[in-house]
Amino acid sequence: MKGVYFFGGGKAEGSSKMKNLLGGKGANLAEMTNLGIPVPPGFTISAEVCNLYYDNNQQYPPGLKEEVEENLRKLEEVMGAKFGDKENPLLVSIRSGARVSMPGMMDTILNLGLNDTTIQGLIAQTKDERFAYDCYRRFVQMYGDVVLGLKPEGKDEIDPFEAILEEMKKGKGVEEDTGLDAEDLKELVIKFKAEIKKKLGVDFPEDPEKQLWGAIGAVFSSWNNDRAIAYREINNIPSEWGTAVNVQVMVFGNMKPDSGTGVAFTRDPATGEKRFYGEYLMNAQGEDVVAGTRTPHPINIAQKGDSDLVSLEEEMPEIYKQLEEIAQKLDTHYRDMQDIEFTIQKGKLWMLQTRVGKRTGFAAFKMAVDMVREGLIAKEEAILRVEPEQLNQLLRPIFDPQERQKALREGKLLTKGLNAGPGAAAGKIVFNAPDAEEWAGRGEDVILVRIETSPEDIRGMSAAQGILTARGGMTSHAALVGRQMGKVCVVGCEALQIDYRRREMTVNDVIVKEGDYVSIDGTTGEVIVGKINTVPSEVLQVIEGQLKGEDSSIYRDYADMMSWADEARRLGVRTNADLPGQAKTAIAFGAEGIGLCRTEHMFFEGERIDSVREMILAENKEDQEKALSKLLPFQKEDFKGLFRVMDGMPVIIRTLDPPLHEFLPHEQKAIDELAKKMNISSEKLEAKIESLREANPMLGHRGCRLGIVYPEITAMQARAIFEAACEVAKEGIKVIPEVMIPLVGDVKELIKQKEVVNAVAKEVIDSSGVEIKYLVGTMLELPRACLTADEIAKEADFFSYGTNDLTQTTFGLSRDDAKFLPDYLEMEIWEKDPFQAIDQRGVGQLIRIGVEKGRKTKPNLEIGICGEHGGEPTSVEFCHRIGMDYVSCSPYRVPIARLAAAQASLKEKNKKVA
Amino acid sequence: MKGVYFFGGGKAEGSSKMKNLLGGKGANLAEMTNLGIPVPPGFTISAEVCNLYYDNNQQYPPGLKEEVEENLRKLEEVMGAKFGDKENPLLVSIRSGARVSMPGMMDTILNLGLNDTTIQGLIAQTKDERFAYDCYRRFVQMYGDVVLGLKPEGKDEIDPFEAILEEMKKGKGVEEDTGLDAEDLKELVIKFKAEIKKKLGVDFPEDPEKQLWGAIGAVFSSWNNDRAIAYREINNIPSEWGTAVNVQVMVFGNMKPDSGTGVAFTRDPATGEKRFYGEYLMNAQGEDVVAGTRTPHPINIAQKGDSDLVSLEEEMPEIYKQLEEIAQKLDTHYRDMQDIEFTIQKGKLWMLQTRVGKRTGFAAFKMAVDMVREGLIAKEEAILRVEPEQLNQLLRPIFDPQERQKALREGKLLTKGLNAGPGAAAGKIVFNAPDAEEWAGRGEDVILVRIETSPEDIRGMSAAQGILTARGGMTSHAALVGRQMGKVCVVGCEALQIDYRRREMTVNDVIVKEGDYVSIDGTTGEVIVGKINTVPSEVLQVIEGQLKGEDSSIYRDYADMMSWADEARRLGVRTNADLPGQAKTAIAFGAEGIGLCRTEHMFFEGERIDSVREMILAENKEDQEKALSKLLPFQKEDFKGLFRVMDGMPVIIRTLDPPLHEFLPHEQKAIDELAKKMNISSEKLEAKIESLREANPMLGHRGCRLGIVYPEITAMQARAIFEAACEVAKEGIKVIPEVMIPLVGDVKELIKQKEVVNAVAKEVIDSSGVEIKYLVGTMLELPRACLTADEIAKEADFFSYGTNDLTQTTFGLSRDDAKFLPDYLEMEIWEKDPFQAIDQRGVGQLIRIGVEKGRKTKPNLEIGICGEHGGEPTSVEFCHRIGMDYVSCSPYRVPIARLAAAQASLKEKNKKVA
Repeated sequence: MKGVYFFGGGKAEGSSKMKNLLGGKGANLAEMTNLGIPVPPGFTISAEVCNLYYDNNQQYPPGLKEEVEENLRKLEEVMGAKFGDKENPLLVSIRSGARVSMPGMMDTILNLGLNDTTIQGLIAQTKDERFAYDCYRRFVQMYGDVVLGLKPEGKDEIDPFEAILEEMKKGKGVEEDTGLDAEDLKELVIKFKAEIKKKLGVDFPEDPEKQLWGAIGAVFSSWNNDRAIAYREINNIPSEWGTAVNVQVMVFGNMKPDSGTGVAFTRDPATGEKRFYGEYLMNAQGEDVVAGTRTPHPINIAQKGDSDLVSLEEEMPEIYKQLEEIAQKLDTHYRDMQDIEFTIQKGKLWMLQTRVGKRTGFAAFKMAVDMVREGLIAKEEAILRVEPEQLNQLLRPIFDPQERQKALREGKLLTKGLNAGPGAAAGKIVFNAPDAEEWAGRGEDVILVRIETSPEDIRGMSAAQGILTARGGMTSHAALVGRQMGKVCVVGCEALQIDYRRREMTVNDVIVKEGDYVSIDGTTGEVIVGKINTVPSEVLQVIEGQLKGEDSSIYRDYADMMSWADEARRLGVRTNADLPGQAKTAIAFGAEGIGLCRTEHMFFEGERIDSVREMILAENKEDQEKALSKLLPFQKEDFKGLFRVMDGMPVIIRTLDPPLHEFLPHEQKAIDELAKKMNISSEKLEAKIESLREANPMLGHRGCRLGIVYPEITAMQARAIFEAACEVAKEGIKVIPEVMIPLVGDVKELIKQKEVVNAVAKEVIDSSGVEIKYLVGTMLELPRACLTADEIAKEADFFSYGTNDLTQTTFGLSRDDAKFLPDYLEMEIWEKDPFQAIDQRGVGQLIRIGVEKGRKTKPNLEIGICGEHGGEPTSVEFCHRIGMDYVSCSPYRVPIARLAAAQASLKEKNKKVA
Repeated sequence: MKGVYFFGGGKAEGSSKMKNLLGGKGANLAEMTNLGIPVPPGFTISAEVCNLYYDNNQQYPPGLKEEVEENLRKLEEVMGAKFGDKENPLLVSIRSGARVSMPGMMDTILNLGLNDTTIQGLIAQTKDERFAYDCYRRFVQMYGDVVLGLKPEGKDEIDPFEAILEEMKKGKGVEEDTGLDAEDLKELVIKFKAEIKKKLGVDFPEDPEKQLWGAIGAVFSSWNNDRAIAYREINNIPSEWGTAVNVQVMVFGNMKPDSGTGVAFTRDPATGEKRFYGEYLMNAQGEDVVAGTRTPHPINIAQKGDSDLVSLEEEMPEIYKQLEEIAQKLDTHYRDMQDIEFTIQKGKLWMLQTRVGKRTGFAAFKMAVDMVREGLIAKEEAILRVEPEQLNQLLRPIFDPQERQKALREGKLLTKGLNAGPGAAAGKIVFNAPDAEEWAGRGEDVILVRIETSPEDIRGMSAAQGILTARGGMTSHAALVGRQMGKVCVVGCEALQIDYRRREMTVNDVIVKEGDYVSIDGTTGEVIVGKINTVPSEVLQVIEGQLKGEDSSIYRDYADMMSWADEARRLGVRTNADLPGQAKTAIAFGAEGIGLCRTEHMFFEGERIDSVREMILAENKEDQEKALSKLLPFQKEDFKGLFRVMDGMPVIIRTLDPPLHEFLPHEQKAIDELAKKMNISSEKLEAKIESLREANPMLGHRGCRLGIVYPEITAMQARAIFEAACEVAKEGIKVIPEVMIPLVGDVKELIKQKEVVNAVAKEVIDSSGVEIKYLVGTMLELPRACLTADEIAKEADFFSYGTNDLTQTTFGLSRDDAKFLPDYLEMEIWEKDPFQAIDQRGVGQLIRIGVEKGRKTKPNLEIGICGEHGGEPTSVEFCHRIGMDYVSCSPYRVPIARLAAAQASLKEKNKKVA
């Protein structure tokens, strides 16, 4: 068995395909070597050896020693240096390297091979005694810590090496390490070794081979240290993967003269533009570039701008040219933007690392689309290159990054809440809806701040730029309505103390008053004091017709990507929309139908709420029907608007869902006003409100339970739907209504409500003379519905999963009351917020049971999802996997869902191929 | 194929074993005939014929006509009468008869065979023209309705025959049918026939054979009429069973002289005593005995009491003797109490029917136990003879039946509520807990009336004889606590208007004031104005030591039955008990452990609530721990008490479950008092209460979610449990604590809480020096817990199903808010209240999934149920069937559960044999 893989001298035994065996780092070092790129040579001990080591009671497999010896000799040969040599000593670094990057495993050991003999060689080679001793003392310290295990004894104790260093600096009267000279550092080496002997009872190994084996053993052991095990458990990494060990020749960017080090990206990681971009420092080590103590220089002239700093292109044009060529080569070879690290040692360029670079959403999109155009990657690959959530950056206004950074630096971050409605907005704060309307009416940008919102706030929410609440979760009234309106929305800011009377809000000691500017970011949940300007989204401008698509390269990239996604996906994408305007936006975003129209949202518009309240407060059937008949024309007009916009696409309309008390006022003033309007006493109204009060409204008299006890309501809604459908159909528009009965737990509930709907539909359609095909289906949002889906499917034309409620009932958890949710996420009891991403292990089982049972009864049953999860990528993938027909989400998430659906399709395809 | 089975002349072709073929009625008539009992002869057309009839497009199978002819001839021969004969005509009745009794199928047709010719024979035979014509007109009316189908046209129209009858009475100026003479009745026959001709266009068939085939066809058709189909659907009766048709010779109890009719029971159906018991009337038909227009006479001298009415034993001693012998024979033969019908025609006794008689709970027990002692039935059969729920009658005080009847007759029933705590109680009403304590303190029996109860009412509830609330369901605070205390409890009386200020309650116009007597029945839910005395339960007196077991025959019957049940059952029975007294009672009722001790119930006792509130209101950890340390000794003493009582039996103790706000007061006065006590401002306390408020507390911060956020609480409770366990163990008592973590939805929650419990347990046990074995398990009460039971079982030593919460979450339904539940039951959307009997189709699936997944991980996992369903017989059977180890229920339901468990075991055994 081969256990060690050499790379160096322009040739490597490994390649980037051998990540499982050599780990990510080792495989990439081998790949670069084979590409003829200058990489400090070295060798990789495979992860297989790690497994054998553990299988065999922590003994190395036979032959390994010899193999490592052999590779060491090869390394000496390539480098013309010798391990342990006093004139030209070979120095190496030792690094772990698993199949995937695993922070929390072993730290790197540098400068291995130094001892009291070889130090002389290093001094001779570098002619820099201080440099050499600094290397030496760092090596002893690292080795003592990582390999020998000399660590602080208690939690609060400081590192024993650091303690000695501090003592010396104190004695010398200097503040910085740089204040120590070569002699001091030499003394430190001696003291460090003495400390090791004293504390551990062992001598620091002088023999470089002993040092090497000690380090190899430490890497293998680190695979099973507590941190690594914990990390593997959390990330589902099998312990059988093991880690490789990379032994690589040291190069020094701080070996004067003509030395330096830097990092660079093969394309711009912020914008995605195809330009070489990076930073470097002369006479420095890698950590100096990122540490921020010295200002790094731009890598090329193009990047300089107004800067006075000299670029690498100017300082070392040859090296720069070589570097740029390598970058280009790597970009093309890996067919992705690379994040590279390089070191220049005495005028020679060495590449230390290449890996796929991190990027902004903008950049991810641009690069992926560009690379398809460049012929580097296929469309399918481009789709998989981007995170669907990154689309938010293309769609929503964001804070000007500079301004935001500045504000954060200045401590303007007031608090963070739940990121309920993405985008960024700034405005003057007001504390009630009428003020929001009024201020907005005179042209002010306002942020509406409420403890929590209620239906009475609808107009104010609509007028505001953004909504900020102290209470409520991701499915609270503010979040749901805000998201659907496309408002920036931050909810559940627990730290926020709101005083309506004083018209101010407080976090700790910071008071923000009515009229003060606040900036909220609904993508991150940040609430910042003051005004931060936003950068508008070009895509949205095009969609809203303010900009031509051909004038926006961002839009063109977006449109191309989306068209490729649509080709790739199987899953349909509908939208949750209640109003024609929302539906229109959703169609512009690519929606293929309405998956959920919440009829009750229409109840709050304008004066209708009066009729709704009249209906609720009716003392007899007659009064109730009178009130309902007032609502009918409103509902009908709403539906007509929707049907017209959705021409030829299916429209799922849900019958009344929330408990009736949600439509009644709860504050005394509003109660008094309503009582007056209704011409009854406040006491009587209060008594009625009290009689409708529920201990747990989420589990109360709502959904189809309302329609069953008050079939007149369902009948009125059905009449509005079918009259609207018939009238719009007569205009020559194709209408596909799908009536959805909510909260069904037993098939008999559906049967009862279907009877009402069908009776009205028959009457209306028959008398209209047009032909309308419609479906009657149900929302699956209760565990019992999923468990008895076979029975329900007998009566249902379609299923639509209401995963908000299903999550609440499966977990026995009200989203609005889950104040402990942050604790649970922090303690890792839940990996993700189950209200954001479908809990596949729990709720997912019920969804799957429902799909299987439903399709067993009706193989072609139309199945979709209309819960908030319908726009969340991992949930969309789940929906694809279990065979749903479509997902439905709020208009602004439609593109995200389309992309996620395409990715799900492609992942499935790739899996089948593999 | 044989299609017709004859019975008569002392011999029958069928038997009681042939119910599937001959139906229940036909089989029993055959059986009695074979026993030599005088039964009017006849024949049964089998249910198989019915199936062939439907399979063959409603044609009779070949040969049936001939077979019926043949049997008719046989009948004529036996009776010496002839079908259609003008001198001695054979008259028959036609009845349907399915395998099980099916009300809603065809009505009986009597006197078939009468026509204008045969009427003369009947007159000649009876010498009673009026009697004969009355028979005739009744026959025409019945036949016209049932066979020919002349029915009212609309819902509101009256029966056409009744209309003619009314018109004739009006013309004659009489009120009653008896006012019509023979001529009138004769005219009626003519008019009826004319009406049939007019409305249906057909002649009434004069030919008796035609009449017969018409009736047979009508019976077969009735098998598929709407009512029968609906009944079959509701009761899961397969349509393939079909119905038989019974054709039987008519006998007349109203054929003067020496004629009569009666009903009797082979044992006393009220007490179960072995004495012949019945009623009869001379010159009457069966319906006269039950109609109540004439007072029936007692059947024998023993039964007469003070009555002046002459008994059958006196009036016709020979007939009586024959009847008693037959009754005895049937009782022995059928090995069960029989409900028999007989007719005496001109001095000859005929038996018309025998069937198993209905009985009270007392009687059911006594008969079953007696019959074992008499050697009639085996113990196993005795167990299956009684309804577990009937045990309530043996255990709980009931209203004196006479007094109750009288009160109901006098219109004293105020309203009905939910029967939350069985038993009956009367007392003066009070409207708050302190009054209840005070009045009870001076020796008054009180009924505590509240809109709903809260923890603050505990002492008052304990002092009261019974509890009556206007709000709340079967798992409301009043119901749970009342049931556990063994209090009579009626909750959720929606009609009740309670005015605390005026100290009165109202239903419609009836006002009941403080101090007025009210009687409540927690078994039926009845609320009666005034005082009704109760009859104490002897069993309870024995269990409570006020009566010796050997002095109570009822107790001896009970004890025997229970010991047989214990032999037969596999399922263990534990109890839900929080206090030593409750546990003691439960053990006397046969409990084998505690399945659920709700620690929070202890929190309300005495002054502890102050410490609980102190803990909740603590501003920092220190204050919190201080408050917890005050609670510790209380909890410990409670557990010590329980452990002592439960010596050697397992005790499951659940850690804190309800949300913290449940422990805080909600009324302003109480808030002010508490604020004063805590030395904080009322405003601050209100703010704290407000901050703990939850929109849906059932889905809120409760169960293990509390213990995870506040591990100190769990730690305190664990300390109390294990210190108590160790101290009691030192007294030489065997202690088996099982710590139960509530509301676990993810195994990680259990892991976290287990860590806390195990750490405390180790510390306490190690330092005590005794050895305690304990379990840590979880309550399965969330759908997600059931779905991930395989993961949870890895960490749990036991599962206990909390079916209250599981039902709430599976249905998405809060029991306390389910005001529409009665509507749902009435509309038959739900067959049973899912909070009373486990919903096996929905919730049952989750329970089963949990058991299967749990046992897959741990084959010997201890699994039980501690929800309210644990004492409900169908639920107990379900628990047995899916392999649970035990059920746990409130103390007073323990015997019911034991019996239900035995029945489940026996049913399973019988099924395996069959």
